Amino acid sequence: MTLSADLPFLMHSLYLIAIVAEAMTAALAAGRRSMDWVGVCLLGCVTALGGGSARDVLLGHHPLSWVEHPSYLLITGGAALATIVMARFVHHLRKLFLLLDAIGLVVFTVIGCNVALALDLPIMIVIASGMVTGCVGGVLRDVLCADIPLLFRSELYATVSVVAGGIYVVGLAIGLDHDVVMLAAMGIGLMLRLLALRFDWSMPKFVYDRDLH
Amino acid sequence: MTLSADLPFLMHSLYLIAIVAEAMTAALAAGRRSMDWVGVCLLGCVTALGGGSARDVLLGHHPLSWVEHPSYLLITGGAALATIVMARFVHHLRKLFLLLDAIGLVVFTVIGCNVALALDLPIMIVIASGMVTGCVGGVLRDVLCADIPLLFRSELYATVSVVAGGIYVVGLAIGLDHDVVMLAAMGIGLMLRLLALRFDWSMPKFVYDRDLH
Amino acid sequence: MTLSADLPFLMHSLYLIAIVAEAMTAALAAGRRSMDWVGVCLLGCVTALGGGSARDVLLGHHPLSWVEHPSYLLITGGAALATIVMARFVHHLRKLFLLLDAIGLVVFTVIGCNVALALDLPIMIVIASGMVTGCVGGVLRDVLCADIPLLFRSELYATVSVVAGGIYVVGLAIGLDHDVVMLAAMGIGLMLRLLALRFDWSMPKFVYDRDLH
Repeated sequence: MTLSADLPFLMHSLYLIAIVAEAMTAALAAGRRSMDWVGVCLLGCVTALGGGSARDVLLGHHPLSWVEHPSYLLITGGAALATIVMARFVHHLRKLFLLLDAIGLVVFTVIGCNVALALDLPIMIVIASGMVTGCVGGVLRDVLCADIPLLFRSELYATVSVVAGGIYVVGLAIGLDHDVVMLAAMGIGLMLRLLALRFDWSMPKFVYDRDLH
Repeated sequence: MTLSADLPFLMHSLYLIAIVAEAMTAALAAGRRSMDWVGVCLLGCVTALGGGSARDVLLGHHPLSWVEHPSYLLITGGAALATIVMARFVHHLRKLFLLLDAIGLVVFTVIGCNVALALDLPIMIVIASGMVTGCVGGVLRDVLCADIPLLFRSELYATVSVVAGGIYVVGLAIGLDHDVVMLAAMGIGLMLRLLALRFDWSMPKFVYDRDLH
Repeated sequence: MTLSADLPFLMHSLYLIAIVAEAMTAALAAGRRSMDWVGVCLLGCVTALGGGSARDVLLGHHPLSWVEHPSYLLITGGAALATIVMARFVHHLRKLFLLLDAIGLVVFTVIGCNVALALDLPIMIVIASGMVTGCVGGVLRDVLCADIPLLFRSELYATVSVVAGGIYVVGLAIGLDHDVVMLAAMGIGLMLRLLALRFDWSMPKFVYDRDLH
């Protein structure tokens, strides 16, 4: 009962923490390319809000979250700018950031699943919606830095999102309590991601060195 | 009569062949960048379904095809993963792939034109819709590989799409039989593409080496 | 009275000048990467019309301008192709281009603000809509050229857009005459951009050289 009542508040708090963490890691990526302050600010917004925006554009789900809540632009842009000042301390907080980023991944995933569930979409699209929400922000960050997206090259990132989304969707489908399923999905996803970081787990790579054209 | 009845089935079969072929060539591109299995799978989906998705997002045409038919995600992701196993044989099939890719281009083009026609859009937008459907998947693949899109640099690819779309639209506009026009548009487009590959036809390049800024 | 009556005509003329200027500078960027004629043409269209398209897709505002006015595709594609012929003279016109590009930036910004105002969106989104309209075309150009967007690295470009949009929105909010506010926003934005070019003004850069991951 208490859990259920506090859950929307908990999720909203976690969402705010997640977009702040995403904006700050994006700001560090911008700093590694010597972008100017405007670039830092924009890259922060795009990275933090890009996953949810991509989901909403693909599903035709308007208005986008930052259009409805413009304060998200201030929060993420502000967090990115604050990172400039804090940069010399930030690297001591490396582990905290990786934790917050992992929390962001599972929170974004569950939120993305919920948006698709509310639109009555098929299970596979619900999971895809969670993955787009969790992962596309980082892809946009890497594309705007003219890099091959990290997502395609390393770590269990998209996999964590699919696992968390899968647990959530299947749990609901077999009629388990919503709050329990959600916390389990996020908890297991988070654990998997932290284990992957700790033990350098990664997907096998596909190496192919002939030209098709 | 028989032709007309079988045409939707033929088109659907060609569409499935086309998305499989696109996913597999994308998987090889992923392999050349040593992406991991998740990256291979995602790049396959994005390349095969990205052209149609871009068209639908630009035209405000929802739901997107893979949202309505989630099996397309399984088919394209599965084809990309299967390519990893088959890679050592695939390069013997180089010519088959180029043929399937060319079929995909004209099939995507005609499907894209049809979507715009059903929305009663002007002729130029119908042709543009065909070209976006046929070409944007490959552009997304190249951007995600941090390359300048091949489309902008070589071969009669976009041109084939515009020619096929133009024949289709003009043929319908002057009242010719739909099925005949469609097969003619695809046939001529396909022939043009194969001739371009065979004889290394390409558009002239624009070389400019001064800085504007 | 006269001003008010002529203003839509003036804005439409400036818009056409702006998309032509954007398409031509994109064509030169294409030439520096030795793209072929099709690539030049496509990059011209995407750069000139991409900002407005991104805005409309994000705001769910259909149909997109070029879908409603297909002639914009011909104008921008044609301007890009014409640049190939004129390239040897164009570099003498360097200053004219920078002026036209600056005019384009403020015109796009005001048009983007107007679209969001017509949708009754909050002030921050109105300014963001102006900035997306003014800046995203150049970002797409740079991404398709596999570069880190110039926008993120140099010059007061996004800043000019935010300043012009801010003046416009605040001026209207405090009840000043629409036409006066619009001309003031565009005039001040234009002056700021030209001063930035003349005196090499730029935002401070954020340089960070540690790895987070």
